[in-house]
Amino acid sequence: MSDFADWLKPREPSGPTILARERAQSGISVGELSRALFAGDDYLERQARILPILEAEPLFDKKQQANLSRPDLYKLALARAKLLRRLVDKHGWDINDYKLAETLVDDVSPYYLHMHMFVTTIREQASDAQQAHLMPLIESFKIIGAYAQTELGHGSNVQGIELEARWDPLSKEFILHSPTLTASKWWNGSLGRTANYAIVVAQLLLPKPDARTGGHTEYVSHGPHPFVVQVRDLKTHQPPKGVVIGDIGPKFGYGTIDNAYMLFDNFRIPHSAFLSRYAKVDPETGAYSKPAIPAVVYGTMTYVRSLIVHQSRLSLARAVTIAVRYTTIRRQFRDRDNTDGPEVAVLDYPTVQIRILPLLAATYALHYTGLAMQKKYSDARKEIEKGDFSSLAHMHSMSSGLKSLCTNIVADGIETCRRALGGHGYGGASGFTRLYPDYLSRVTVEGDNWMITQQVASYLIKRMTEAASGKPGSDASHLEILHAQASGRTLHPYNILDSDTALVKAFRRRASFQVYGIYVNRVLRKTPWTSLMIQLNKASHAQSMAMIVELFYEAVARNEGLSPTIRAALLDLYRLFACYYLELEGNDFIRAGAVSQSELNALPAHIQQLMAKIRPHAVNLVDAWMIPDYLLDSALGRYDGKVYEELFHRAHRLNPLNKITFNPNYWEDEIVKGTGDNWSSILAKL
Amino acid sequence: MSDFADWLKPREPSGPTILARERAQSGISVGELSRALFAGDDYLERQARILPILEAEPLFDKKQQANLSRPDLYKLALARAKLLRRLVDKHGWDINDYKLAETLVDDVSPYYLHMHMFVTTIREQASDAQQAHLMPLIESFKIIGAYAQTELGHGSNVQGIELEARWDPLSKEFILHSPTLTASKWWNGSLGRTANYAIVVAQLLLPKPDARTGGHTEYVSHGPHPFVVQVRDLKTHQPPKGVVIGDIGPKFGYGTIDNAYMLFDNFRIPHSAFLSRYAKVDPETGAYSKPAIPAVVYGTMTYVRSLIVHQSRLSLARAVTIAVRYTTIRRQFRDRDNTDGPEVAVLDYPTVQIRILPLLAATYALHYTGLAMQKKYSDARKEIEKGDFSSLAHMHSMSSGLKSLCTNIVADGIETCRRALGGHGYGGASGFTRLYPDYLSRVTVEGDNWMITQQVASYLIKRMTEAASGKPGSDASHLEILHAQASGRTLHPYNILDSDTALVKAFRRRASFQVYGIYVNRVLRKTPWTSLMIQLNKASHAQSMAMIVELFYEAVARNEGLSPTIRAALLDLYRLFACYYLELEGNDFIRAGAVSQSELNALPAHIQQLMAKIRPHAVNLVDAWMIPDYLLDSALGRYDGKVYEELFHRAHRLNPLNKITFNPNYWEDEIVKGTGDNWSSILAKL
Repeated sequence: MSDFADWLKPREPSGPTILARERAQSGISVGELSRALFAGDDYLERQARILPILEAEPLFDKKQQANLSRPDLYKLALARAKLLRRLVDKHGWDINDYKLAETLVDDVSPYYLHMHMFVTTIREQASDAQQAHLMPLIESFKIIGAYAQTELGHGSNVQGIELEARWDPLSKEFILHSPTLTASKWWNGSLGRTANYAIVVAQLLLPKPDARTGGHTEYVSHGPHPFVVQVRDLKTHQPPKGVVIGDIGPKFGYGTIDNAYMLFDNFRIPHSAFLSRYAKVDPETGAYSKPAIPAVVYGTMTYVRSLIVHQSRLSLARAVTIAVRYTTIRRQFRDRDNTDGPEVAVLDYPTVQIRILPLLAATYALHYTGLAMQKKYSDARKEIEKGDFSSLAHMHSMSSGLKSLCTNIVADGIETCRRALGGHGYGGASGFTRLYPDYLSRVTVEGDNWMITQQVASYLIKRMTEAASGKPGSDASHLEILHAQASGRTLHPYNILDSDTALVKAFRRRASFQVYGIYVNRVLRKTPWTSLMIQLNKASHAQSMAMIVELFYEAVARNEGLSPTIRAALLDLYRLFACYYLELEGNDFIRAGAVSQSELNALPAHIQQLMAKIRPHAVNLVDAWMIPDYLLDSALGRYDGKVYEELFHRAHRLNPLNKITFNPNYWEDEIVKGTGDNWSSILAKL
Repeated sequence: MSDFADWLKPREPSGPTILARERAQSGISVGELSRALFAGDDYLERQARILPILEAEPLFDKKQQANLSRPDLYKLALARAKLLRRLVDKHGWDINDYKLAETLVDDVSPYYLHMHMFVTTIREQASDAQQAHLMPLIESFKIIGAYAQTELGHGSNVQGIELEARWDPLSKEFILHSPTLTASKWWNGSLGRTANYAIVVAQLLLPKPDARTGGHTEYVSHGPHPFVVQVRDLKTHQPPKGVVIGDIGPKFGYGTIDNAYMLFDNFRIPHSAFLSRYAKVDPETGAYSKPAIPAVVYGTMTYVRSLIVHQSRLSLARAVTIAVRYTTIRRQFRDRDNTDGPEVAVLDYPTVQIRILPLLAATYALHYTGLAMQKKYSDARKEIEKGDFSSLAHMHSMSSGLKSLCTNIVADGIETCRRALGGHGYGGASGFTRLYPDYLSRVTVEGDNWMITQQVASYLIKRMTEAASGKPGSDASHLEILHAQASGRTLHPYNILDSDTALVKAFRRRASFQVYGIYVNRVLRKTPWTSLMIQLNKASHAQSMAMIVELFYEAVARNEGLSPTIRAALLDLYRLFACYYLELEGNDFIRAGAVSQSELNALPAHIQQLMAKIRPHAVNLVDAWMIPDYLLDSALGRYDGKVYEELFHRAHRLNPLNKITFNPNYWEDEIVKGTGDNWSSILAKL
C-alpha cells in the first residue's frame, strides 16, 4: 500500500546521525569494554552464533506478538518451544546454547519447568534407580515434567501446604488427596496444558507405629515431601480419573506459559513415586528415615536465587539501553536560557539523567555482584562436596538478601526507564510491554522480596550476637559499632566525597548500625519478632546494599588491564551508584554516624557533576552490553537510531487493526463496515 | 463439566467468616462514613441506579476480556460504546450518568474524545456560527470527533509541532501539510479507527503583508492553532485523498481505544475550518487578529488537571480495597513467637501494613484534596467570568503540581498494593491487570509529571521573589524563611509527634525552604535553569505535598458532624499519611529545620503505632468507598470474601485455554491434539 508517507523523512538531525556523533565523541572502546565485561565467558561468541539462526525462522518473529490473544500466545509459545528443541538436535546445541536461545526468543517457554526445576529435582532428589528409569525419558522429551509445590492457599509457607500423601500399608501405595479447595496446586508452570509428569510436593503422612485401633489407622505428618507423578496420558494427553488439572488463566505477564491448578481425589501412586535419594519410607514397615543432610535443600534455593541476581542485570540493561539511545535522539524544548538554540536532547536534562544514569550504573553494579556471587557459590559448592557446610548459612543469607534487593532495583528501574521515555514509552513499540510485566514476577517468585529478608535478618542477628560474644572472624564494622555503643563514643563520619573506599565503609557502617538495632531489640530486649519486621527488612536491605557497593568497588579497583578512559568511566559509575543510593536514604547514614550532614547536603550537586561526566559515554556504555535489536524488540532502542521510521512502520504497515474499516454509528448494529458483522460475533467470545 | 472439585471448600476460616468478623469489630459505620464522603454529591444514588442496568447487559461482562486479542478488544469496546450511547437514549441519562457508566464499564471508550476534548474545544474555541452548525451534529453523534495535537516528534513542547496550515490567499483555503514524518499526528485518541472529524492543531502560516515577490509568498508563523477538519467520509468511513490515518497499534495499556497517527499531503480545508471564537483570520486580507485573552487556554488545562487529581483517589481506592480485603483473608505462617497459634492474617504483619495502610490514608487525603481543588476551581471560574484573572496563575500552578504528585502516588501505589498480594497479585483475577497499565498513562498525559513541575516552580519562584520584595499577601512560611536567612537565626523545629497542626506547619516550612533554595539559585545567583531542574522538581513536590497535608487536615478538623469513632479514625489516617511521607523524606525536613533529629528517629515507631490503631478499621474504611464488585473485577477483592472459590471458578470453568488439548511432543508438528492443527495456523498470524 504505497502512499505519500513512503517519501517522508523525520526532521533533522536524524537518529542515525545523532548516535554516530555520540559514539564517536566518547573515548570508550565498546569492543574493549564488552570483552572485559564478558571475560572468561563465551557469551558473545555464543550470541553471534545463535542469533542468525533464530532470526531466520519466521516463527520467532516478534512483530505481531502484542496483537495475539492469550490462547494464541500459548499456542505460539508451544510451537516455538518445539522448534527450539528441534534446533538443539539440528545444530547440536549444548544446554547453554539452548538457554541463550530461550533468552533471545524471550518467551517464558512451556518447556521451561521441564528443562529447569523438573530435571534438577530428579537429579538431586531421585535415587539412582529412579534416575536410571527417568533420565533417558526426560532427556529425550518422551516425558515432559513440571514442578508442583505452591498451592492456592500456601506459597511462602511451604510447611503449610495441604495436599496429603498418605501411605496405605495394605496396598503399599501412597494416596494423594486434596482435602480442601485451597489444597489445589496453583501457579505450577508448564503443568496447565503441557506437562505429563510432575514433581508433586505433599505432606507425607505415615501410620503411627502400633497405632492401629479398631480398623482405624492413626497418621503422623512428616512434613512436605516430593513425589514424581504421571498426570496425563502419554497418548491422549488427558489426566487420569481422580486428577483435575488445568491452566489458571491470563496473568499480569507470563502469557506464554501455562501455570496450573491441580487437585487429587484419593489418587493412588506407587511406592516408587516417592523421591528417595535422601529420605526413605520402608515399603514393608512404613518406617521413615530422615535425610542425612536436610540443609541440602538450601543449596538449590541458594543456586536459583544467585542465578536470579546474575540475570537481573541483563533485564535492566535492556531497559537502560532503550532509554539511553532514545533520550539521546529525542529532542524537546529549547534551553530556557538560550531560546535561539536547537531543541535539547532530553538526556541532557538533569531530570532525565537522574532517572536513567544511576540505573546505567546499576547494570554494572549488578553485573559485578552477580559474577562475585557465582564465584562464591561455586567455591562454597566445592567445600560442601568435601563435607564442609560452614559457608552454607552465609551463602543462603547473601543470596536471599541480594535476590530481594536486586530484583527490586530492576523491577522498579525498568518502569523508571519506561516513564522517562514519555508518551512513546507507553507505546507498544517501546520494548517494555513484555519486559516489564514478565519481570514483575521476579519480586514474588523464589521467595517474596519482603518475606525473605527475615531469613537474612535472622542470620545477621546471629552474626552480631557472635560478634558481641567475642567470636573471632566477626565483621570489623560490627565490632566497631559494638565498641562505640559500649563506650558511648561517637563514631567519626567518613569523608565520602573524596574517597572511594570511604563510600564502601559508609555503607558497611550503616548496615552494621541497622543490624545492631535489631540485635538489641530481639536479643537483648526480647521484642516480639513480628513487631520488628520493618526493621528486619531495613537491616537486610542495608546489608545487601553494602555488599553490592563493596563488590562493585572491588571489581573496578581490580580491573587494571583496562584503558584509563574505561577505568575512569567505571569508577564514575561506581561513585554515582553509591552516592545516589546513599543520598536516597541519607538520614539512615546520618543516624549511623556514617556521613556528616554537610557532606550529605553536598551530595545532590556531587551527583549532578558525576552524571555530567558520564553523560558523554552513555551510548557507548549501553552498547557494551551487546544486546541485539532482536531481543530489545524496540523501535526506541534500535542500534541504528531509526526510531521514528520504525514507529511509523509498525503503526502504518504492520498493525492488523488498520486492515479493518469500522462503522462508528451507534444507531447501526454493524461493527465491521460492509460485512454485516454486528456485535453478536464479539459477544460470542465473552 | 461436573467433577470432584465441585464439592471442595476452602480451608477454614472462610473469607466470608473473616470479613464478617472484621466488619463487626470495627465501630465505624460504613453507611455514615460513606454518606459523609459523598455529601453534596448524588454519586451513590447514581451508582445504585446505573449499576444494575449495566450488569444486566451480557456485552458488559468482563470475565473474558483478558483473553481477547487487541483487535477484538477494540471491537468489543466499540460495540460497548454504541450500546452505552443507546442506553443514554433509552433511560434519558444525563452526562454524569453517562460518565459514571463509562467509569463502571472501565473501557477507555472509542467515543471518549468525542464526548470530552472534541465537544469541549468546539464549545470553547468555535465561533457562534461554527457552533450553530456543529453542535447539533455532535450531540446527535452524526459526526464523531477527536482531538489531534500531539505529533510523533512533539508532545510536551506544543510550540514545536510541525504540521503546517498555510493560508492560500487565492483560493481562500488553508493547506494542511506534514513536511516530515515526525510531523505525523500521534497518540490522538478515538481517531485511529472511530472518528470522522478532528480538531487538528497546526502551525498557522499567514503571508507576510506586502511580501509577495516574484510570484512567491513569504509566510510568517503565528504558532499552533486549532482547526476542525473532516477526516473520513460519513458513508464509506474512508479518509480523503491527501490524508493518511490509522491506529498506532497495541500499547502498554489502553487497548480499547484507537490512538491515531495522521499525515496530510497539501490537503485543502475551507476558511470555516479555522476555530475563530478568539483568534481570527480575515478571509479577504489574510490579516490575523490575536485572541483577546490568551490565558483562556490555561483554563481548560487547569480544569483537566484538577479533574485528574479528583479522579485519582478512586483509582487508588480500587487497589486499596482489593489489597485490604485480601490481606485480611489471606493467612500465611504462624507467629514466630507463638508457633502453636493459627496462621496470621498477612495484614497483621507490619511489613504488609507499611505498604497498604499509608495508601489507605492516601485515598482519603486525595479525596479531600480533590474536593478542595474542585471548589477552588469553581470559585476561580466565577472570578474569571467577572474579568478577574488574578487567581489563574495560582490555580494553574496548584493543579499542575497536584496532578504530578497525585498521579505519581496513585500509579506507584497501585503497584505497591499489587505486590503486597504476593503470587495472587500477579494473577489475572487480581483486578490489577487492566487497572495498572491503564492508569500508568496518567503520569505522562496532560503534562508529563516531571516536566510540568517546572511550571509550578516558575510560579513558586515568583511568589518567593514577591515575598522578598515585601509584597503583601505572601505566605507566612515564605516570610519566616526569608527573615531567618536574613538574620542568620535558626528556626526552632516543630513538635510533630503531639500536634496535628505542627505537622501541617512542618510540611509548609519544608516547602518554603525548598522554594527559597531555588529562588536564591535562580534569582540571586542567576544559575542556569536547566541545571536547577532537579531542585525545581523537589520544590514543586514539597509544595504540593504541603498542600495535600493541609487540605486533608482542614477537612478532617472541620468534619464536626461525624461520630467520634469516625472522626478519630480520620485523624489517625491524617497522621499516618503525614508522618509516613515526612519520614520518607526525613532529611529534607531536617535541613529545613522543620523537625528535630530525635523526633524523626521516633517516627518509625510512631507510624507503627498509628497503623496498629487503624488496622481494626481497615475493612470498613475501604468499604466506605462503595466500589462495586463489578468495577473491582477482582477475585481477591470481592465484597463477600469468596476469594478462593472465585479464583478456582475463573481458572477451572471460564478459562478458554482449558477447552483445548495440546500435543506437547516436539517431534510432532501437531499443536492442537486430534485436529491436525500444526503451527502453520499460528505462523499465519505473525
